[in-house]
Amino acid sequence: MRIRVINPNTTAAMTETIARAAREAAASGTEIDAVTSSTGPVSIEGYYDEALSLPGLLIEIRKGETQGVDAHVIACFDDTGLDAARQIATAPVIGIGEAACHAAMLIANRFTVVTTLERSIPALEHNLLKYGLERRARVRAAEVPVLALEDEASDARARIDAEITRALVEDRAEAIVLGCAGMAKLARDLSIKHQCPVIDGVGAAVKLGEMLSVLGLKTSKRWGYQSGTPKMLTGPLAGLMRGE
Amino acid sequence: MRIRVINPNTTAAMTETIARAAREAAASGTEIDAVTSSTGPVSIEGYYDEALSLPGLLIEIRKGETQGVDAHVIACFDDTGLDAARQIATAPVIGIGEAACHAAMLIANRFTVVTTLERSIPALEHNLLKYGLERRARVRAAEVPVLALEDEASDARARIDAEITRALVEDRAEAIVLGCAGMAKLARDLSIKHQCPVIDGVGAAVKLGEMLSVLGLKTSKRWGYQSGTPKMLTGPLAGLMRGE
Amino acid sequence: MRIRVINPNTTAAMTETIARAAREAAASGTEIDAVTSSTGPVSIEGYYDEALSLPGLLIEIRKGETQGVDAHVIACFDDTGLDAARQIATAPVIGIGEAACHAAMLIANRFTVVTTLERSIPALEHNLLKYGLERRARVRAAEVPVLALEDEASDARARIDAEITRALVEDRAEAIVLGCAGMAKLARDLSIKHQCPVIDGVGAAVKLGEMLSVLGLKTSKRWGYQSGTPKMLTGPLAGLMRGE
Amino acid sequence: MRIRVINPNTTAAMTETIARAAREAAASGTEIDAVTSSTGPVSIEGYYDEALSLPGLLIEIRKGETQGVDAHVIACFDDTGLDAARQIATAPVIGIGEAACHAAMLIANRFTVVTTLERSIPALEHNLLKYGLERRARVRAAEVPVLALEDEASDARARIDAEITRALVEDRAEAIVLGCAGMAKLARDLSIKHQCPVIDGVGAAVKLGEMLSVLGLKTSKRWGYQSGTPKMLTGPLAGLMRGE
Amino acid sequence: MRIRVINPNTTAAMTETIARAAREAAASGTEIDAVTSSTGPVSIEGYYDEALSLPGLLIEIRKGETQGVDAHVIACFDDTGLDAARQIATAPVIGIGEAACHAAMLIANRFTVVTTLERSIPALEHNLLKYGLERRARVRAAEVPVLALEDEASDARARIDAEITRALVEDRAEAIVLGCAGMAKLARDLSIKHQCPVIDGVGAAVKLGEMLSVLGLKTSKRWGYQSGTPKMLTGPLAGLMRGE
Amino acid sequence: MRIRVINPNTTAAMTETIARAAREAAASGTEIDAVTSSTGPVSIEGYYDEALSLPGLLIEIRKGETQGVDAHVIACFDDTGLDAARQIATAPVIGIGEAACHAAMLIANRFTVVTTLERSIPALEHNLLKYGLERRARVRAAEVPVLALEDEASDARARIDAEITRALVEDRAEAIVLGCAGMAKLARDLSIKHQCPVIDGVGAAVKLGEMLSVLGLKTSKRWGYQSGTPKMLTGPLAGLMRGE
Repeated sequence: MRIRVINPNTTAAMTETIARAAREAAASGTEIDAVTSSTGPVSIEGYYDEALSLPGLLIEIRKGETQGVDAHVIACFDDTGLDAARQIATAPVIGIGEAACHAAMLIANRFTVVTTLERSIPALEHNLLKYGLERRARVRAAEVPVLALEDEASDARARIDAEITRALVEDRAEAIVLGCAGMAKLARDLSIKHQCPVIDGVGAAVKLGEMLSVLGLKTSKRWGYQSGTPKMLTGPLAGLMRGE
Repeated sequence: MRIRVINPNTTAAMTETIARAAREAAASGTEIDAVTSSTGPVSIEGYYDEALSLPGLLIEIRKGETQGVDAHVIACFDDTGLDAARQIATAPVIGIGEAACHAAMLIANRFTVVTTLERSIPALEHNLLKYGLERRARVRAAEVPVLALEDEASDARARIDAEITRALVEDRAEAIVLGCAGMAKLARDLSIKHQCPVIDGVGAAVKLGEMLSVLGLKTSKRWGYQSGTPKMLTGPLAGLMRGE
Repeated sequence: MRIRVINPNTTAAMTETIARAAREAAASGTEIDAVTSSTGPVSIEGYYDEALSLPGLLIEIRKGETQGVDAHVIACFDDTGLDAARQIATAPVIGIGEAACHAAMLIANRFTVVTTLERSIPALEHNLLKYGLERRARVRAAEVPVLALEDEASDARARIDAEITRALVEDRAEAIVLGCAGMAKLARDLSIKHQCPVIDGVGAAVKLGEMLSVLGLKTSKRWGYQSGTPKMLTGPLAGLMRGE
Repeated sequence: MRIRVINPNTTAAMTETIARAAREAAASGTEIDAVTSSTGPVSIEGYYDEALSLPGLLIEIRKGETQGVDAHVIACFDDTGLDAARQIATAPVIGIGEAACHAAMLIANRFTVVTTLERSIPALEHNLLKYGLERRARVRAAEVPVLALEDEASDARARIDAEITRALVEDRAEAIVLGCAGMAKLARDLSIKHQCPVIDGVGAAVKLGEMLSVLGLKTSKRWGYQSGTPKMLTGPLAGLMRGE
Repeated sequence: MRIRVINPNTTAAMTETIARAAREAAASGTEIDAVTSSTGPVSIEGYYDEALSLPGLLIEIRKGETQGVDAHVIACFDDTGLDAARQIATAPVIGIGEAACHAAMLIANRFTVVTTLERSIPALEHNLLKYGLERRARVRAAEVPVLALEDEASDARARIDAEITRALVEDRAEAIVLGCAGMAKLARDLSIKHQCPVIDGVGAAVKLGEMLSVLGLKTSKRWGYQSGTPKMLTGPLAGLMRGE
Repeated sequence: MRIRVINPNTTAAMTETIARAAREAAASGTEIDAVTSSTGPVSIEGYYDEALSLPGLLIEIRKGETQGVDAHVIACFDDTGLDAARQIATAPVIGIGEAACHAAMLIANRFTVVTTLERSIPALEHNLLKYGLERRARVRAAEVPVLALEDEASDARARIDAEITRALVEDRAEAIVLGCAGMAKLARDLSIKHQCPVIDGVGAAVKLGEMLSVLGLKTSKRWGYQSGTPKMLTGPLAGLMRGE
């Protein structure tokens, strides 16, 4: 089985972190194909960055479809472009945000997402509403920029740690979801320290991809995710999407 | 006052329809600056088209900000890119989908959106949920492609008409919202024929733009729509966004 | 165009404040007809006052209909009698509470209403639920009686100011809605001071009235707002409603 | 114990029906004091009639408070003026609409309200939302005017009967709630005919009044239902409320 | 009339407390038949205890049906086994949790449940959601084990008292619901002390049982609570349920 | 890794079906330990059967914990006893109902559960609400008793097939979830026939168990699923739970 993990943040160091988390979770027969989007913002923090990451992300989804991958994982916690990707994919597409939330619901009555910046909160709250989790989850920001997670010298870890402490008491959280792909490497340590499940979405998404593939389940092409006839593009984006 | 109406569908004929509806609604002192996005899909039908319309749309938002417009209108009923646009704009940004819904709530207990294709329904239902209207509105599709609305010989009008008839009885709708910018020209006739309010979002959005401008209200820059520091883009999208 | 702004609080000084806010917002061709209800409580604070303001309010709605006004504005933040007024009106009827909320949703992910007294909170929360905004808005009271707003010597302004400060931090509010018609005059100053949108519903309602009128949209007479045959009234209210 | 049952419809024949249902339900020690409002519409069908029934209703609430009744029942299925009444009452106030719904929830997973006219539906749906029942109940209209219920020659009974038949199949209803005080006399027969619980709110409200009284529970005066200082009324309503 | 009050906690001292509260509330013609479940956990605190109390509880429901009781009351605030009991009962079945909540909604806009242990909170929040009260109520725990309520020397009363104080301010609660059958005896004193309604569900459930019985309302046997054909049981539970 | 799949229906033939579905889905290193509950109803259809299946189910959970299994799967679509099991387990516990729903959300905007009998619908609707899926899913019954699924001569397959056809059109379903463990064997054929994803929860639950185990995630022991001190049981259930 082959699962394509796409980092829509165009920062290769972050893709390393993601690939490692994906491979640790993968079953023995699963090949992880981790790729960095070839064009778009170096990090995704909020609505605008999300929007500009879409062309690069969708190019990678198309490539994966051509290669016949068994599942696509979108390795950005905002689940950027998830529905658009599903419209052009026959293989399943899993967002790491939804993956982590599905895992959390299996082991906790209530959980808190700890994300990077305040300005990412509304997009994540919006996703929770879409997924039906607005009654069971809260979102908090540690005020850590995405790229600070790649910088060993930053205080990122301490800030995330402190926010988890607050969540466990103030939100009555029973589990913590790490709200950024770049935090994947912190899950196990934080879990031990806080004596509660701390969930990274990258590993969870890989396992969900395996689940759907083994069960023979693909993205439904009835109603909402119908592909339709290819639409003509005008202007420079036409060339960009053709890889020119 | 100057309101910029952006058609993120890259079809100039459709922009004509939109511009006409916008000008009919505008106050005497309001200048309508109707523009067609320079790059992206010729029509937007569903999630994937939405995603690819974003770079072109955001380029136009940036241009409007440079020109100091008083409000931006996004003339696609999916309210494509609304949050991303707000993050880079100081002037208010109004989607025609939300505009039509706000108008409908002022004159009806319950309303139905009649849109183009089945595959656009989930995105619109999702917007209704986000706007808090899931208890008061339904979405139906007339199975009319967006560009058929520009073709006088198509049966588009008859199909929309029939769907409205169904909505008024089956949904107990008190008003109808036309779910595509290209339907703007049909509102008045359908309203007379069905003896009930039929709402086009283009005119409504222009008036909401005037409202916010006159009241001195701009997009809030606290929390969710903070602009943040400009993010580096990599790859061909960097050039595209710089207008190369 | 002629918009009738009805103050259901029977305090003429308050109508002055309201009329000024309405005229500042009106377009050049819009005539504002601001009237004070002829009978009812001097100020509306909570459910009971609301109930007793209804006969006076509905008399004014009927008068406006006879005069052929283009829209009615109910200038009480509780949107007192809104549905009853719509049932007897063909022109649109807009409440200043809903108007302010519609404006807030266009520029903010989340907002807080700052109203007068604690005992008004449940009625306003109830309205937010009806409008579908219970997930995006909170209500707070500054513990300022309505009529204190007309008294320059009161500490009303300071209390409202302090409550806004709390809302911006504790509620993560991105915009503030002033929860009483009598606060209209404070919007601009508070907006500058707090560097965030502070919204008064009077001006917003006038602009929404213009919007509906220009678009030819009237209160729907299908299903819920059907007028029905005039109902016989018994007792002294019969005379009161006939203007005796 | 003394329970005051107020008919805000100013039609004495209807009060008879209501009084009979109330007495049949009352415990041996409970005295039913059934009164017809002295001023307002002869029947309440929709928002406008509701509004005009309030002064008469509130006069009766005040009288009951002076007499020291143990509970007030508002015998209109719209629960007209319920919150306003609670603000001036220390004894509990129960609406027959909410009473019937509370009873239905104890014996059925899901139920349907069968009311009089289409135009009453939105007000009732709105109440269901306020009571948290929007997921468990539906509202239907039999298109029977309230006063036709007092006319033996009308087809009211047949129409209600037919609507119940539809509700049991189409809504998967497990119980039926009769959506008008005037239908009280039909409950038992319809219950036998349809072999399912058919609930009248008048009897239910009387029993809930007894419940609260026996348990020593009164309307809370914290926060929302605080009485506040009496408010000055201006104009003819002032005299009306003083009983002039 | 005969109402069977079943204590699914197998602690007889607690049944005494419950029986006393039930008898104080009962009408003169109502006989209270208070029974302790013959098998199961000595106290119910959270999901696991709930599960193990079910066989004993359902045996008692069956006995009551054989005796032809007019209503069953389940005297555990979790409303343990409520739906299962309704499936085998023709008489109505009322849980003390739902009963207290129905009473609270009649006298307060918003209320707080004060229960025993933290680990009982999710089950109660889940019930509130099922009953449609998630927007009007909160749950708090006083960290008092159920059986400590039977121990005069414990600090149970002081802890409950302190939690009520917090709820009245922090939750803006207008009424308090005591979240355990064993707290029944505290309601009146706490009500006087805190000058607000404090509600015990045992008395409320008895009165609701009387209400349904007087109105001739039984558990609906359409759709959800159909009994179906008796199912074969295997293993030792078969003997247990036959009373061996 | 060892996953214990517990059939709380005490019918061994059904456990065979379940075990086969579980093994087909399991990864190469995963051992499936499929067990039939030793005491309880032969099939679970509705609330009452659910209740009586709990002691047997919880005995098996305890056994699994003693054996140190990596995850427990509850193979009844009602997710019977899920929360109770989590309270006594440290390994994760997954219900096949929730598992199928999580899978459906990854590949469809909207789905329909096709279950056995009408009387099972409310319990499943209730679960959907608890999982936050009430806006995205519907439940239908094919009126097929659970044990008919084990009888090749029954018309079970035809009835399920017909109900799926209705769901795809009337509910606008994009995927189908099979609402009973006994339907596991039908998934692939129905999926091919209807050209849409048809999901069985048994396989999905096994894969979710693998996911949680590989990621090192266990049932949270903070707040809601705390085990507490073992509670004394009285009566025959005490012996039954000790295995006497």
